[in-house]
Amino acid sequence: MKRKLLILPALLLAGMSFAQEVDLAAIEKIKKEGLENSKVEEIAFQLVDKAGPRLSNSEGYERAVDYAIQQLSDWGLQNANAEPWGEFGRGWEMEKSYIAMTSPYYMPFIAIPKAWTESTKGEVSGKVYFLDIKTEEDFAKYKGKLKGAIVAIKPTGTQEPTYEPDAVRYTAEQLHGMEHPAPRGGGNGSYTPEMIAELRAARAFSQKINEFIASEGPALIIKGVNGRHGTLFTSSPRGYIKDTPDVIPELETAPENVNLMARLSENGVEVEIEAEVKTRFRTEDLQGYNVIAEIPGSDPSLKSEVVMLGGHLDSWHGANGATDNAAGCIVMMEAVRILKATGLQPKRTVRIALWGGEEQGLHGSRGYVAKHFGDRETMELKPEHEKLSAYYNIDNGTGRIRGIYLQGNAAAEPIFNEWFLPLDDIVEDRTITISNTGGTDHQSFDALSLPGFQFIQDPVEYRTRTHHTNMDTFERLELDDLKQMAVVIASFVYNTAQKDEMIPRKELRKVE
Amino acid sequence: MKRKLLILPALLLAGMSFAQEVDLAAIEKIKKEGLENSKVEEIAFQLVDKAGPRLSNSEGYERAVDYAIQQLSDWGLQNANAEPWGEFGRGWEMEKSYIAMTSPYYMPFIAIPKAWTESTKGEVSGKVYFLDIKTEEDFAKYKGKLKGAIVAIKPTGTQEPTYEPDAVRYTAEQLHGMEHPAPRGGGNGSYTPEMIAELRAARAFSQKINEFIASEGPALIIKGVNGRHGTLFTSSPRGYIKDTPDVIPELETAPENVNLMARLSENGVEVEIEAEVKTRFRTEDLQGYNVIAEIPGSDPSLKSEVVMLGGHLDSWHGANGATDNAAGCIVMMEAVRILKATGLQPKRTVRIALWGGEEQGLHGSRGYVAKHFGDRETMELKPEHEKLSAYYNIDNGTGRIRGIYLQGNAAAEPIFNEWFLPLDDIVEDRTITISNTGGTDHQSFDALSLPGFQFIQDPVEYRTRTHHTNMDTFERLELDDLKQMAVVIASFVYNTAQKDEMIPRKELRKVE
Repeated sequence: MKRKLLILPALLLAGMSFAQEVDLAAIEKIKKEGLENSKVEEIAFQLVDKAGPRLSNSEGYERAVDYAIQQLSDWGLQNANAEPWGEFGRGWEMEKSYIAMTSPYYMPFIAIPKAWTESTKGEVSGKVYFLDIKTEEDFAKYKGKLKGAIVAIKPTGTQEPTYEPDAVRYTAEQLHGMEHPAPRGGGNGSYTPEMIAELRAARAFSQKINEFIASEGPALIIKGVNGRHGTLFTSSPRGYIKDTPDVIPELETAPENVNLMARLSENGVEVEIEAEVKTRFRTEDLQGYNVIAEIPGSDPSLKSEVVMLGGHLDSWHGANGATDNAAGCIVMMEAVRILKATGLQPKRTVRIALWGGEEQGLHGSRGYVAKHFGDRETMELKPEHEKLSAYYNIDNGTGRIRGIYLQGNAAAEPIFNEWFLPLDDIVEDRTITISNTGGTDHQSFDALSLPGFQFIQDPVEYRTRTHHTNMDTFERLELDDLKQMAVVIASFVYNTAQKDEMIPRKELRKVE
Repeated sequence: MKRKLLILPALLLAGMSFAQEVDLAAIEKIKKEGLENSKVEEIAFQLVDKAGPRLSNSEGYERAVDYAIQQLSDWGLQNANAEPWGEFGRGWEMEKSYIAMTSPYYMPFIAIPKAWTESTKGEVSGKVYFLDIKTEEDFAKYKGKLKGAIVAIKPTGTQEPTYEPDAVRYTAEQLHGMEHPAPRGGGNGSYTPEMIAELRAARAFSQKINEFIASEGPALIIKGVNGRHGTLFTSSPRGYIKDTPDVIPELETAPENVNLMARLSENGVEVEIEAEVKTRFRTEDLQGYNVIAEIPGSDPSLKSEVVMLGGHLDSWHGANGATDNAAGCIVMMEAVRILKATGLQPKRTVRIALWGGEEQGLHGSRGYVAKHFGDRETMELKPEHEKLSAYYNIDNGTGRIRGIYLQGNAAAEPIFNEWFLPLDDIVEDRTITISNTGGTDHQSFDALSLPGFQFIQDPVEYRTRTHHTNMDTFERLELDDLKQMAVVIASFVYNTAQKDEMIPRKELRKVE
């Protein structure tokens, strides 16, 4: 019943837009190829298992770039290449990561070095000092005392039993709720100016703590992070930037492990650890790269116009970045493979982009957009800006598509509504919301008022277990969901390539 | 509504048993002490964090024994001591556990050495050979080829996203379902003779594989085990037994890690690892010990009769055994503390037992029962057999008590029904089932037809995350549930001590 409630308005809207035409036979071909002859498992093996962790400018990232270029070329795409987008900085490799408590008893810990941190001086061992800095006065307690020490910082989260599932799918009710536009604003959702000021102050104080610790020169930092049950969420300093000062070795450690040491310390039991971190920096090429490849348009009058699809190829380093974001790249590669395999001839040029440097600030897509479309600061536009119909992005994990965020572009709604209709058998309770979604590469396009879209995906384990964690492994992929996503994307891309007009745009953003 | 349905029959039954008397004022004292002045968190810190892993005859087990004896004595219990129950075997300590994949890229793995395995010869490194032995013919593939090799075995379980919560509590419906007696039988539930034969054959073949691998003499075995998201379930060979041949170093490893190596290998990518396992055996004292302590009975004519309560103090070694079974020991220690703190004077003697060697086959409780009550094989009984009223056990994790298993002792039902009534405000949907529950120390009593009971507890994360895992840490304890359990146990123990008659018994088991 709920499903019908959602479908009816879509049908009505579709009925209103007679100008649109969808090639239903083409969509059936796409479905058949994508659902019955899928290559998502094979692509997943290559990007996830074989390439491994794909931290920007790491060897794993290079392996993934090389594979993608070769594979896209083998499928018949043109101009497959690693296109530089600007300077990223140093690559970084993990060569050893070991930590265990050795007193009052032996216990191996689960930990991952923060990306771009230095090596320890061989194996370090000894007493653990807990830092507890909450106010400006607290610095004095530690001043001058941490040189060469092993310092630990407690996690802030909790790890009680979890009565909610790790993996969830959206209910029809939840999706229906998304149809109502979110409050508009500067992209900060419902944060008040006071909350933003508070967050900034907290971040500044946290930065001050980091600088204090660095200035004291400890031998190793053990940081309790979020997560539970052996899953831990990694993060990183900005140590990739050229000429950054050395960053003290830091192990992001399972909260259960750090809290064990903390409870022992707080109860007067001296805690000792042994640890070794070995890392290696790569400085031979500081350039950042995106993978770009094309299916040239078949219509001479439309081939100069472009439909783009993409996702970021880089990952964090604690695991193989299966859902963040090999998933998006698998789907996008499979989508262009489907278009080639079906023999469909898109009128406009289809261009896939697998971005680098997303995790450090959407660097790859921003660099690409700056080079091709214009300057986000001045809104000075380049000629290609007129030629991009739309950009479609996937970066919310392995969960199947349940709809799309319009990113405030109301004029696109009837078009997408019509395009979803023939996918109704595979997109359950599909939902189109005027809302924005943030945090990834479609924003680089949106910043230039280009139609950049991201899809509503089932969360599955993205927030609880996978994104940025040490457990973002092949097992976390729902292959059937990846197949569905590839079919939806291939359909949208094909429809965009064939449509009489380009996708309507929002008004050009004004520079303030 | 459902709750009422369950309560009504209990009230009716209670109304029928006029001979029983419950000292409601005493129960209120117990509740007040247990809920408002609880010491479960402090006991938990001592047994879980401070003692650490409590593998039988390990240093951690000794620390826990020493603490328990001292603590029970401090609370005023008598005769607190470590009572030997027979020969257990060698203690074992983990001194180093490290494994990482080094090729095709570096990735630290999550692993725990199997208990009682030997050390590697320093750090071992090199290519990983996967073993895939499914039939007798498969042995030939590996014969003579594994000497000094690093061999790996894939896990059998799967690790897809989990749409069910890790932690659950019983619903009223589920508890109601338990009230219906399970089919009676030899304790094997619904297994058919064919299924049992199949299971035995599988176990025998698995044993044969182990012996084959051992005879080939690899340097290290990497075993993919059950679990997910960084949680792994450990196991152990029987290497604790005196004069057991050396057991090859074996790392039980997260399934995601082993499956990564397996997929790479199967796709032609050579995989290398580096690993180091260092273990130490303790042979100075092979004796096994239980902790025993008493509150002597206050009634001269009844003090020779005994009410026992207990749980096993030993744990596996991958974590601190918080829910398996520090939880049971915390509850039982807190229950006797409550009885002392309230100043209640139990008429019969109350005896707490914290068992050793449970994880290797209920050794501690079996040894105790053999020494005090009789021979389970011959059913030759000792004089103390007549003097034990009941034994109450906790060993199903941190979840609160929701009822009790009668273990086939129908005559106890009206008694327990009456005893649960004044606990109705803290035992939700409490359920009394005629069924058996197995797998732990009350069975040692039941085997001699002594009234040995275990309680129905909410599962929480016991089956999914905690029992036998590397994640059975302090965080997994629900302290409020431990408080509730201690109050229920203290009430049951007190009522048993005060009751005019001892708890009725089942017919003496006949030796076949």
